[in-house]
Amino acid sequence: MMNDFDEEKDPIVNPEVVKKIKGWGNYIQAKLGFRNHWYPVGFSEELEENNPMPIQLGGEKLLINRIDGEVFCIANTCLHRGVPLSKKIECYSKDTITCWYHGWTYNFNDGKLCDILTDPNSKMIGTRALQTYFVEEVKGMMFVYLGDVAEGEKPPALALDLPPGFLDEDRYALGIRREIGSNWRLGAENGFDTTHIFIHKDSDYLTARDAPIPLGFATEQKLELDIRDKDDAPKGVIDPLVGNYRPVFEASIKGEPALSSVRPKGEHQTIFRISLWLPGILAVENHPERDITQFEFYVPIDERKHMYFQVLSKEGVTEPEQIERYKEVFKSLHEPLALRGFNDDDVWAREASQAFYDDDYGWLEEQLFEADHNLIAWRKLASEHGREIQRAPRTGTARVIASKKE
Amino acid sequence: MMNDFDEEKDPIVNPEVVKKIKGWGNYIQAKLGFRNHWYPVGFSEELEENNPMPIQLGGEKLLINRIDGEVFCIANTCLHRGVPLSKKIECYSKDTITCWYHGWTYNFNDGKLCDILTDPNSKMIGTRALQTYFVEEVKGMMFVYLGDVAEGEKPPALALDLPPGFLDEDRYALGIRREIGSNWRLGAENGFDTTHIFIHKDSDYLTARDAPIPLGFATEQKLELDIRDKDDAPKGVIDPLVGNYRPVFEASIKGEPALSSVRPKGEHQTIFRISLWLPGILAVENHPERDITQFEFYVPIDERKHMYFQVLSKEGVTEPEQIERYKEVFKSLHEPLALRGFNDDDVWAREASQAFYDDDYGWLEEQLFEADHNLIAWRKLASEHGREIQRAPRTGTARVIASKKE
Amino acid sequence: MMNDFDEEKDPIVNPEVVKKIKGWGNYIQAKLGFRNHWYPVGFSEELEENNPMPIQLGGEKLLINRIDGEVFCIANTCLHRGVPLSKKIECYSKDTITCWYHGWTYNFNDGKLCDILTDPNSKMIGTRALQTYFVEEVKGMMFVYLGDVAEGEKPPALALDLPPGFLDEDRYALGIRREIGSNWRLGAENGFDTTHIFIHKDSDYLTARDAPIPLGFATEQKLELDIRDKDDAPKGVIDPLVGNYRPVFEASIKGEPALSSVRPKGEHQTIFRISLWLPGILAVENHPERDITQFEFYVPIDERKHMYFQVLSKEGVTEPEQIERYKEVFKSLHEPLALRGFNDDDVWAREASQAFYDDDYGWLEEQLFEADHNLIAWRKLASEHGREIQRAPRTGTARVIASKKE
Repeated sequence: MMNDFDEEKDPIVNPEVVKKIKGWGNYIQAKLGFRNHWYPVGFSEELEENNPMPIQLGGEKLLINRIDGEVFCIANTCLHRGVPLSKKIECYSKDTITCWYHGWTYNFNDGKLCDILTDPNSKMIGTRALQTYFVEEVKGMMFVYLGDVAEGEKPPALALDLPPGFLDEDRYALGIRREIGSNWRLGAENGFDTTHIFIHKDSDYLTARDAPIPLGFATEQKLELDIRDKDDAPKGVIDPLVGNYRPVFEASIKGEPALSSVRPKGEHQTIFRISLWLPGILAVENHPERDITQFEFYVPIDERKHMYFQVLSKEGVTEPEQIERYKEVFKSLHEPLALRGFNDDDVWAREASQAFYDDDYGWLEEQLFEADHNLIAWRKLASEHGREIQRAPRTGTARVIASKKE
Repeated sequence: MMNDFDEEKDPIVNPEVVKKIKGWGNYIQAKLGFRNHWYPVGFSEELEENNPMPIQLGGEKLLINRIDGEVFCIANTCLHRGVPLSKKIECYSKDTITCWYHGWTYNFNDGKLCDILTDPNSKMIGTRALQTYFVEEVKGMMFVYLGDVAEGEKPPALALDLPPGFLDEDRYALGIRREIGSNWRLGAENGFDTTHIFIHKDSDYLTARDAPIPLGFATEQKLELDIRDKDDAPKGVIDPLVGNYRPVFEASIKGEPALSSVRPKGEHQTIFRISLWLPGILAVENHPERDITQFEFYVPIDERKHMYFQVLSKEGVTEPEQIERYKEVFKSLHEPLALRGFNDDDVWAREASQAFYDDDYGWLEEQLFEADHNLIAWRKLASEHGREIQRAPRTGTARVIASKKE
Repeated sequence: MMNDFDEEKDPIVNPEVVKKIKGWGNYIQAKLGFRNHWYPVGFSEELEENNPMPIQLGGEKLLINRIDGEVFCIANTCLHRGVPLSKKIECYSKDTITCWYHGWTYNFNDGKLCDILTDPNSKMIGTRALQTYFVEEVKGMMFVYLGDVAEGEKPPALALDLPPGFLDEDRYALGIRREIGSNWRLGAENGFDTTHIFIHKDSDYLTARDAPIPLGFATEQKLELDIRDKDDAPKGVIDPLVGNYRPVFEASIKGEPALSSVRPKGEHQTIFRISLWLPGILAVENHPERDITQFEFYVPIDERKHMYFQVLSKEGVTEPEQIERYKEVFKSLHEPLALRGFNDDDVWAREASQAFYDDDYGWLEEQLFEADHNLIAWRKLASEHGREIQRAPRTGTARVIASKKE
């Protein structure tokens, strides 16, 4: 009895809402993210050899393990009676995990039910397999391909799901991750949204780093975006900022001066560009300082939570002493001041947005304005180029793949 | 994209239940109260000048503010991305509030989007407005008209939504309010229900005040009620008590004496009448003592909670020294003994009733008896004269009004 | 207005799931257990004379009381406004309970509304009754017949809902009960499932008692079960174990030795047979030691919880000194080591299974293997011989029986 869940009958998104959205309906349906894409699930240093770790991605409960250095990813739900394998980890050989309940034993590499310890004679052995997912490690991060790949085939290249520059050899990446109480799209849109800069106006980061942050961006001319949607390349929207807007440092209400931003005293850094890439990665160039790009991954955990990866990738860091020096600055300066202090404002802003979008009606009721043109471009791009909508797995379970006879 | 929520498709009350109720179906639907009525939202002293306070009324999230002494009420949800304005209050001019997220700025008096601090050039400015509600202050309480009023028009008079006598010039009102974990109708019915008096039989109030409280009221003749449903006057049901019932001080089970009420020693006070008024206000005359009327307002917060206003309005209190004296007695005697001690029984009784009515089936399954005739009269009156059923606003958001071009 | 809840329209189990299950659909629907069966609700010593105790059974809120030694069971929900009688117990005569809210007073023996203390003249008196259930006490346990019995009739014999041997005169039963966070069926199947023995491999019980517990049971021949489905006798499935399986003490993975069970040093006890009986009772013979049968009752509380009765019934215990001695051994040895230590593993295993079955889809997605043949036999037997499916009572309320005129 295989999973015959009918997506048409059990949608996770209110179909009335989807019908009414013109132009980016797929994006609205991608409440759990897009399937057939690569997502980071952790930093390499978090996963020790032979110490399986449960994760949740796109609503699916998964288990990753490192064996002889290589990382594997299988469903975390025993095929037999549906319990989480990670509830009590039992590994009796290096490359398998045994379910604590009835001894069903699975390979980490192909998910196959290779033995049943309670009944070595069972005919089920070798005819079933857990869902498995491809894993790659780059730049100190583990990426899982949340998608289905026919036997003998390979998934699309990881590089297609990373912003240009991320894999550059002379860059060194350091970061943190944390769970945020909002849908992943509210994370992504918060980051790419130019005028959300207003929430940072009181940040200690501004005075501490003498960094110029305007209150907003006035739209004075036709806004231009660089849409990247060529085949065989990452898909994203680049907002050049410069040229599109006039920074606002003084704001008035009904003609009376109301508010000024903190004006920097010294030399200004410049944020050249911001861009947002499928399946949900922001790049902010020259931030928090020149030669560093801040990459942010908004990874769907479930409908109401995302994992927020904040990664600072610095150019020209290749030698051991450079790496050591960068790690020190990251730990003492960038992490506390930029990734925590400054971005903490973004975290609570996203969480404050969740209630409005929680039942999907927010997508109909919101009132976008001119500065949101880059979000609209992003929604259209994601709707067109997201490879597939991630569907809701059943409560508490990963999907099983079809039976396979050896 | 305006709110096009379809009430017919998304009812808050089980339509199967509504169909089966004969005679008071509107009342059963008014789970969130009645729209186009006045409700108290707080005591005047709670709201300082220029210090906006979030409230919830009929399921809607609202924000009130006092400007130059006058109180205004607007929706608490930014039109742009739906966040609560009150999450971080930012007021840069006396009569506006600015959304902390993207600087959208609204007038308190008409709700209009008067400026956007992040983009002073946006064409949205002046073309949108938050929902606003009329506010009046009387007897030290702030009342909001939860309803829609066409431009240039006025709402119905506040006096139509207050019990007769409440506004009398020689009366002085003092009170408290608290949030109760039951639907507002279970609050209103608990108060007007004559035989709920049974729960007060052990109250310290009885002995402390030497007050006669019977165990119940025997129905011995035709019960008469005074139904007030004339145009241009408050709508309510008055139960004269005297004449309708014989007070029961001794109860027996199968003919054997079972229980006696505490009999007062001294002079008895008399409760002349009880009455219940739209949109949900009880008046108990001569309680907790002669010359005081206890007014109780059961104000819907959401489907499962109401704000319980307990107000003692005393006659002949107009001079400063009388007011001072009344405040002292209120604080030392009436509040602890009557509004807390005695009425605490009502609070837990309402909360104990909630589970039965929570899924609406309780209205079908309850078994009313003779003494409930005044509740039935109330339900019919409310069904007929409640101006409109308050519908469920979308999760976490107030409604937006249609765009208006200046 | 009687309860006219429409079961066809408001099913508790996803009808899509029921449609797809072949062969044991009734069992899948029996999420709240089977109606018209006897269930234990407590141990006799828990219920004192005249001290009513609330219980929940099959989703229904009930109240039991002991009067002159005899136990009675009535619905715990007042007919009038649906409040729980047990919220504040008020008994003014030995054989009645009075609702704390309006004084409605009910007989414990027939549930009849015998008086209303707040209005002795009400015409309702004598015309309404609470649902009542038959109660029997045997072997120190109280059993309630969760079913409807026409006036003047008797329910089926309790013995039909007990495993053979349970009522034997030379047996003495001692036990404990606790609330478990899983559906009752996951309890029953955990107990009867032969290969779940795998979870006990590390139990202190094994070494402390020198008891031989294999890792599993290899299926080597045609598996035979003893199906008991004759009229007028308990209905159950007996798995003789011996003859059906070869015990597995050594397990290997891909041909390499992986795991051994703790091998007993001394003489082995033998578990002769395990059996599972309607409406959900396990019998494990000669466990935790020879001459004791462990009976386990999995009693539905609601959809997600069951009461787990663990009863050890020892043969040849009839004399006072034998009983005393047995109580001592039970308290000092069997309870801590077997019922707690050993069975605690079963408890967390059941609770770990709940998420997968919570939305009913687990019954479609599970992948059963050869050793589960006894579970399949049980599901078929229960589907065929469960007398009726227990339906969901309304939230927070027991059902009312039809009005009856005296």
